[in-house]
Amino acid sequence: MKIGKGVEWAAHACTLLAALPDRWALSAEALASYHDVPAAYLAKQMQALSKAGLVVSARGANGGYRLARPATEISLWDITAAIEGTLFSFRCMNVRQNGPCGMAREDCVSPCGIAATFYRAEEAFRASLGEVSIADMLVSAAMQGTPDAARQIADWVAENATVSSPAAGD
Amino acid sequence: MKIGKGVEWAAHACTLLAALPDRWALSAEALASYHDVPAAYLAKQMQALSKAGLVVSARGANGGYRLARPATEISLWDITAAIEGTLFSFRCMNVRQNGPCGMAREDCVSPCGIAATFYRAEEAFRASLGEVSIADMLVSAAMQGTPDAARQIADWVAENATVSSPAAGD
Repeated sequence: MKIGKGVEWAAHACTLLAALPDRWALSAEALASYHDVPAAYLAKQMQALSKAGLVVSARGANGGYRLARPATEISLWDITAAIEGTLFSFRCMNVRQNGPCGMAREDCVSPCGIAATFYRAEEAFRASLGEVSIADMLVSAAMQGTPDAARQIADWVAENATVSSPAAGD
Repeated sequence: MKIGKGVEWAAHACTLLAALPDRWALSAEALASYHDVPAAYLAKQMQALSKAGLVVSARGANGGYRLARPATEISLWDITAAIEGTLFSFRCMNVRQNGPCGMAREDCVSPCGIAATFYRAEEAFRASLGEVSIADMLVSAAMQGTPDAARQIADWVAENATVSSPAAGD
């Protein structure tokens, strides 16, 4: 059982995006450089987040990624599901249908006790991740940091983010 | 994220062992044949269960596997841990130490919010599996079966199990 490191990277990337002011964005390259992770691999994770509707990307010189909705409304389960998919980790092979005493297929409509127990445990895992938002992660990171670190991050963001003009009517 | 099929096999094998009378045992080959799974691979899972103290194996003509303790005291988490190990699925790479604004290693004594959230979710997963015993699985299998199926299983067990003599003083 292993959660790919793309989940960790995506969670950190979203936490940084949560710190951006309105209309600011960061390119996949900038996000990769900030976290010192391979740009091509992080770009893949960002595309998965985008496909799942968690981030949006603007193209062009002022393009880049920003969160698609408030950081309070993006959970760590949302990010995990976007990167790893929503299939259960326990893949029931219906062993109960095998062998000399195997059950008939038509008698196996509901999952067996073993599969049902694993599905319930995975729901508990998902619910636990679902209770924690990217906003919580931003607060947690801020609490572990120092004022100097916060200034350093703010400087880096100011240098590397792109800022789009307000749309007409904004 | 994927749980190896060895966990499913081991859980089914333990459920069958839970149905055995005292002093009865089943060889790895018999367990594999009952579940129609590859004998060499199931033998590996049984060895892992044995190493974890969940089953014991007697050698010789009357040898075979039986549960090492009451089925009520072996949980699905015990089995999962024996087969998959107890490492967390989320392997924190300490991304927060990376890049131009990375934290100093000495400031990273406690896990970051992201890792802590995943560890908590995995504890919920483990706790959920830990609440369900092999005895529960036996009851669940019995409830999904029929009297005919129960007779068929009893016949198969009678033909394939080994029965050891009571030790002196028993």
